[in-house]
Amino acid sequence: MFRHTKQLQFEAKPERPDPVYAHKLQELIGGAFGEMTVTMQYLFQGWNCRIEGKYKDLIMDTATEEIGHVEMLATMVARLLEGAPATMTAEAVKDPVMAAVIGGMDPQQAIVAGGGALPADSNGYPWNGKFIVASGNLLADFRANAAAEAQGRLQTARLYNMTDDPGVKEMLKFNLARDTVHQKQWLRAIEELEADGLETDIAPSALFDEENQEHNNTIWHLSDGPDGNKGGWSTGEDRIEYLMDPKPLGGPGTAPKPDPALYGTYSPTQDAVGTVKGKAQSVKSKLT
Amino acid sequence: MFRHTKQLQFEAKPERPDPVYAHKLQELIGGAFGEMTVTMQYLFQGWNCRIEGKYKDLIMDTATEEIGHVEMLATMVARLLEGAPATMTAEAVKDPVMAAVIGGMDPQQAIVAGGGALPADSNGYPWNGKFIVASGNLLADFRANAAAEAQGRLQTARLYNMTDDPGVKEMLKFNLARDTVHQKQWLRAIEELEADGLETDIAPSALFDEENQEHNNTIWHLSDGPDGNKGGWSTGEDRIEYLMDPKPLGGPGTAPKPDPALYGTYSPTQDAVGTVKGKAQSVKSKLT
Amino acid sequence: MFRHTKQLQFEAKPERPDPVYAHKLQELIGGAFGEMTVTMQYLFQGWNCRIEGKYKDLIMDTATEEIGHVEMLATMVARLLEGAPATMTAEAVKDPVMAAVIGGMDPQQAIVAGGGALPADSNGYPWNGKFIVASGNLLADFRANAAAEAQGRLQTARLYNMTDDPGVKEMLKFNLARDTVHQKQWLRAIEELEADGLETDIAPSALFDEENQEHNNTIWHLSDGPDGNKGGWSTGEDRIEYLMDPKPLGGPGTAPKPDPALYGTYSPTQDAVGTVKGKAQSVKSKLT
Amino acid sequence: MFRHTKQLQFEAKPERPDPVYAHKLQELIGGAFGEMTVTMQYLFQGWNCRIEGKYKDLIMDTATEEIGHVEMLATMVARLLEGAPATMTAEAVKDPVMAAVIGGMDPQQAIVAGGGALPADSNGYPWNGKFIVASGNLLADFRANAAAEAQGRLQTARLYNMTDDPGVKEMLKFNLARDTVHQKQWLRAIEELEADGLETDIAPSALFDEENQEHNNTIWHLSDGPDGNKGGWSTGEDRIEYLMDPKPLGGPGTAPKPDPALYGTYSPTQDAVGTVKGKAQSVKSKLT
Amino acid sequence: MFRHTKQLQFEAKPERPDPVYAHKLQELIGGAFGEMTVTMQYLFQGWNCRIEGKYKDLIMDTATEEIGHVEMLATMVARLLEGAPATMTAEAVKDPVMAAVIGGMDPQQAIVAGGGALPADSNGYPWNGKFIVASGNLLADFRANAAAEAQGRLQTARLYNMTDDPGVKEMLKFNLARDTVHQKQWLRAIEELEADGLETDIAPSALFDEENQEHNNTIWHLSDGPDGNKGGWSTGEDRIEYLMDPKPLGGPGTAPKPDPALYGTYSPTQDAVGTVKGKAQSVKSKLT
Amino acid sequence: MFRHTKQLQFEAKPERPDPVYAHKLQELIGGAFGEMTVTMQYLFQGWNCRIEGKYKDLIMDTATEEIGHVEMLATMVARLLEGAPATMTAEAVKDPVMAAVIGGMDPQQAIVAGGGALPADSNGYPWNGKFIVASGNLLADFRANAAAEAQGRLQTARLYNMTDDPGVKEMLKFNLARDTVHQKQWLRAIEELEADGLETDIAPSALFDEENQEHNNTIWHLSDGPDGNKGGWSTGEDRIEYLMDPKPLGGPGTAPKPDPALYGTYSPTQDAVGTVKGKAQSVKSKLT
Repeated sequence: MFRHTKQLQFEAKPERPDPVYAHKLQELIGGAFGEMTVTMQYLFQGWNCRIEGKYKDLIMDTATEEIGHVEMLATMVARLLEGAPATMTAEAVKDPVMAAVIGGMDPQQAIVAGGGALPADSNGYPWNGKFIVASGNLLADFRANAAAEAQGRLQTARLYNMTDDPGVKEMLKFNLARDTVHQKQWLRAIEELEADGLETDIAPSALFDEENQEHNNTIWHLSDGPDGNKGGWSTGEDRIEYLMDPKPLGGPGTAPKPDPALYGTYSPTQDAVGTVKGKAQSVKSKLT
Repeated sequence: MFRHTKQLQFEAKPERPDPVYAHKLQELIGGAFGEMTVTMQYLFQGWNCRIEGKYKDLIMDTATEEIGHVEMLATMVARLLEGAPATMTAEAVKDPVMAAVIGGMDPQQAIVAGGGALPADSNGYPWNGKFIVASGNLLADFRANAAAEAQGRLQTARLYNMTDDPGVKEMLKFNLARDTVHQKQWLRAIEELEADGLETDIAPSALFDEENQEHNNTIWHLSDGPDGNKGGWSTGEDRIEYLMDPKPLGGPGTAPKPDPALYGTYSPTQDAVGTVKGKAQSVKSKLT
Repeated sequence: MFRHTKQLQFEAKPERPDPVYAHKLQELIGGAFGEMTVTMQYLFQGWNCRIEGKYKDLIMDTATEEIGHVEMLATMVARLLEGAPATMTAEAVKDPVMAAVIGGMDPQQAIVAGGGALPADSNGYPWNGKFIVASGNLLADFRANAAAEAQGRLQTARLYNMTDDPGVKEMLKFNLARDTVHQKQWLRAIEELEADGLETDIAPSALFDEENQEHNNTIWHLSDGPDGNKGGWSTGEDRIEYLMDPKPLGGPGTAPKPDPALYGTYSPTQDAVGTVKGKAQSVKSKLT
Repeated sequence: MFRHTKQLQFEAKPERPDPVYAHKLQELIGGAFGEMTVTMQYLFQGWNCRIEGKYKDLIMDTATEEIGHVEMLATMVARLLEGAPATMTAEAVKDPVMAAVIGGMDPQQAIVAGGGALPADSNGYPWNGKFIVASGNLLADFRANAAAEAQGRLQTARLYNMTDDPGVKEMLKFNLARDTVHQKQWLRAIEELEADGLETDIAPSALFDEENQEHNNTIWHLSDGPDGNKGGWSTGEDRIEYLMDPKPLGGPGTAPKPDPALYGTYSPTQDAVGTVKGKAQSVKSKLT
Repeated sequence: MFRHTKQLQFEAKPERPDPVYAHKLQELIGGAFGEMTVTMQYLFQGWNCRIEGKYKDLIMDTATEEIGHVEMLATMVARLLEGAPATMTAEAVKDPVMAAVIGGMDPQQAIVAGGGALPADSNGYPWNGKFIVASGNLLADFRANAAAEAQGRLQTARLYNMTDDPGVKEMLKFNLARDTVHQKQWLRAIEELEADGLETDIAPSALFDEENQEHNNTIWHLSDGPDGNKGGWSTGEDRIEYLMDPKPLGGPGTAPKPDPALYGTYSPTQDAVGTVKGKAQSVKSKLT
Repeated sequence: MFRHTKQLQFEAKPERPDPVYAHKLQELIGGAFGEMTVTMQYLFQGWNCRIEGKYKDLIMDTATEEIGHVEMLATMVARLLEGAPATMTAEAVKDPVMAAVIGGMDPQQAIVAGGGALPADSNGYPWNGKFIVASGNLLADFRANAAAEAQGRLQTARLYNMTDDPGVKEMLKFNLARDTVHQKQWLRAIEELEADGLETDIAPSALFDEENQEHNNTIWHLSDGPDGNKGGWSTGEDRIEYLMDPKPLGGPGTAPKPDPALYGTYSPTQDAVGTVKGKAQSVKSKLT
């Protein structure tokens, strides 16, 4: 069960409105790596966690924080939109900069949300449940968490460079810091899983004996770049072998004869079809 | 530019059809962490890579391999569907096991694809471009790659346990092996980025001085689990501090006065609204 | 900012597993009117609310409760899936009822979530941000809230009739109760808006003088059902007039001449095209 | 079966083109509460209606009208796009206002539709079937209808304020009027359902005895706003009780032991995991 | 403007219910090539048509018919669901065939639609606006129409083979017939466009002189299949040339130096990165 | 299995950056008829092809080429974005043209892709698997292919007119040429299918005797346009008959009595509901 206080986790006050920036900031709310994603990703991971104790508690602490980040950003967007020229008509727009501002705004922030934030990204695409990962395997999920925080911090850093507003920058400095520590904590938790003997370095830590031993340590050179085998990954004792001229190991990928009731195009003597026009028909006639 | 050989990278022949399993296998084709995802993720990362050489070449080698994995799985699905009872009518279904098989099939594999694979997951949801990550920042993207391969191997391992068919298992053993080495290679490539001085351990490797120093090494205890601070992450010299009783740092998240032309509900004397019914109206009358 | 306790708002313990029901229960989690919808709908409405006081506080109290409902349902799903035959192979399935169970399961609950809930509906379609409404206009939004709770209670009631499990029923009785009171509260809040003079009975409460007075109280009889004008809505002093033989008021909906650079099919003498084959060409030749 | 006349229900002629406004107007065509939504919502409700007579006839009359509203708006969009600078090249754009216009246009209206309307909203997101509600329960659906018309009128009103064009305003005045009467009619139809004894004030009108009686008249105070209990809803004889310090009623939301074949992270002695690093491993060794 | 009669265009009465078939039939309602698609495709094409007369009238006649096809199918689905065991509980299901039926049903037809049709396909994916084509170019669109009717007839034919119910088959025979004539009419309309001199055989009929003349009549042999050049397309006077050993014509696809403020991974001396570990760093130090 | 060379199929170098055009060009990458669509459409058709030989080889040759087209366009987009003012802040934007440029950019190309291409269209909507067609029936699919290439060439032609950049135009001339020959090849392959006796002119070439013979050669005049019957399609010996005053052939589309456990609104004496307010209730009382 959850409780809420009306105080924001951190202040979210722009010095002045900037509706074009409010448009861009949607990416951090409803984008694939926005705050709605980490909120829901950590909540579902916590609820789906099968091992009580430090891992689950860490997940739920972080999940609960992230709901408050959506709140901060939604508040910031509403404030950036204050006094936005949303309802300025074509006729009224004389100033070309104002015209450009209107062109750069998110029309739905005005028409749909009445000057507020949307659960969508900076192109108006709605947040959806496919953005999250909650597999029940902690190593696989902590990797996804570290990756999500990395993309999140990267996007926050890019947005940090797109504004001069001291209030916005102050909030983003906080967000950058939280993305830093969250990256760190998931990487540390990955180490902890190994120290606890719960997972090793490949997810899931199983089926190693069953997997094809011939093919679990080779990189196939299938593009003609000359440098792929010059990385550290292909040197040293534990190097991954670079197969420089790999050959396909399977036969041709032919699909089977179709169910006649599904009307896939087919001829009883398929090989005839390759060459001579009309062959299929003549063969078919003979068969009938 | 690409070239294609009709030989599969690895064999994909089931011993016998299994249309219910063909349904489940869609997850590895068009699911969020299926082969279409890693194909497109690596292709866009390669095309978007700003640094020629070993990293880009590794990415493109792997990307090109993955297209062939979609091919293997699509071929396997078509073969698993051979002779499927897709067109059996309700009347004809006397055998309850057969009835169950029909219930467990993906109707679109028959109706839409004529007995073949779909670019969709095991619930029929189509693959989409939001499943991929290609940010131009290699550390952030290699993290995402390692995470994607981990989820992919996890799902492959789960599906490995859902079949007894030796042909299917043989192919999945190959897939497991490739997912193992791909996890390994992206983790090694992350180390290489650091060795090369291109990135450090947090993505992006920038804005460290600018970020809020007070808040980049603390975990907020916002859920009541007692064990969050007992992990390795909160011990040792480089420990992350666990804030056991954190307080919100911001003011209330009030949204600004709305644009009247957008018709947000509002009263000139907002505080009046909190308590007495009708107060808003009486205040408004006085103002007019 | 939010806080979390690990205690559920209400107990969520099934008496025994039922993986087919776990599939159906997804509708109440990630469906268009599931708990994720009311959670996000009320959160965004609260954050977007422009009038401090009783309305906003009511919204935020309810929003915060709903997060806990997602939690209850996600927990219930995981428990219903305990021991599910997810990894039973085709070969192992001898019992037709077991075969049917497997056919009725959500494959992604096993393959993707490892035996847990998904942020998706009962057809595997992911929850998305378009499911919510948060316009900033409280009358319009409270209407949407009452409607959402009605659909939610309806679906809960249907699901209540699809199980015999006392534990599941116990939880759903709680959910039904909450959906009842939430419907009531939003309807009461609508009355309060009017009592406060903030909104009237049509949303938004504006532009009444501007709207077309001739057409704001008529129902157009455009289908041939004979009873449309026999409802209470078309009787009494404040009746809505039923236009029994309405005529279109506009001219033909012709689209303008296209931009030649966009290659819309067009002929300089359009009227010629209607009748004689080849006319367009001959006219064009004459023009050149 | 349907029939069509080429005359529009109401005129849809702008005085002059305005491609930026044509972009915004997409919201009323393919947005979540646009005309495609009410068209399909009422059609499916009518086809799914289980009770012949006045209700169904009212639904079908309104549904049929709404198809014509999509037609009016699609026509208006094509006309607003006449002569739009869609194919102006970067080089040719000297006038900054023209540049801003191009920036504010919907690129797909030109590239995809050749200067026409799209079945999408003002952010280019396509209309989809999840936007509609047709449950078979008339009370629940009429609530949704009144809510949809309220959001629709609100958005129309906002768009009315974003143009000065007399022709556009004339059409929107008609649309506003229709949204007014449609709100009215659904609210009246809700009253009629009650008068007819078909439904009461909560949907569905069933399971009232079964629902948890202790929890169907309380609001849980889970956010710290002080005014939630000051609304009319918590006063009077039929007041809803405000639980000022509610406690969770359930136990902890622990997920069950996972299926080993699904590789959820798990340890046989879970409680050990909470505290000491490596404990899980040492316990596991002892067990083997 | 549209009008509606309650009589169906053709009868839609199954002899007996079949809820599993009702699930499959969704494909013809809300699938990519279902009746909602042709309805909306033809409506938008008609509204977007820039040339009055026979073409537009043909489009609108057909569009109007298609709305009635959605109606027939929605009615059929509701009737196929009559008495469906939607609310049968796990406990009550003793009969394995019944269990299989429940597994093969669409859960949302019961939970969401109350025993009716959904605007979605046979995997529960909602119909969306991206399914349609309405470009303003009649040749391009009539091609799309003929293709859509072909896929539609194919799916109808497959579904025809999945039922024995005489009533269902009777309706599908009508649908098959309509799909036949609609294919025919669009192919005939394509011929008419040419006869009228409005379009030739390639869409759009423009920019033929501008396009690259060297590459508009060759097929590149990029897969190793030996028979591609044995079709009629590569024989005769107007044959398309088969380039048997095509070489790439462009340079390497290198992406430019990134904007430093976007944090793409980059090194000032890129070529160094290809080979030696740490080179990037040492080069960077020298530059500083 | 696939292989890759780093050389592009054709050069993709703009003369100068144009970030607004980079936004529009997304349509050709991830739009419904962009290069990702034809890539995946042809790949799945090839893998799903049930007839070895010339058809399958042609499909796979073309499929393999198309992957390289996505590559060319992704490279072009990155180059068009070089030096884009993505990170220019509101304060820094003094030049109104620059402001307009920023308004016309795709924010995600900067924030998400770091100055690169996205797997999405020109409105930021992600490419998805529903864009493709691969039914196993070659006639139906080749029709879809010709249609896709027609829409693709049309969009390319429109985009050709939106730029003056010689480098961009050079690449688009190549693309136009490829779209020309691909249209030609699919149309020729359709002729070949007929020559081979594999398919006739309607897809699928089956169930002609079963389909309703009375309704497979008539066009229903359901819109009031006077010219529909003046096309070549309704003249000549093989004319399609134009039914000028068609009548519905079915009965009313009434839905059956609902399952009481699903709470559809219903009254035992339905006909009573049509007329008198309260009738339903009084009837119900009598029944109890």
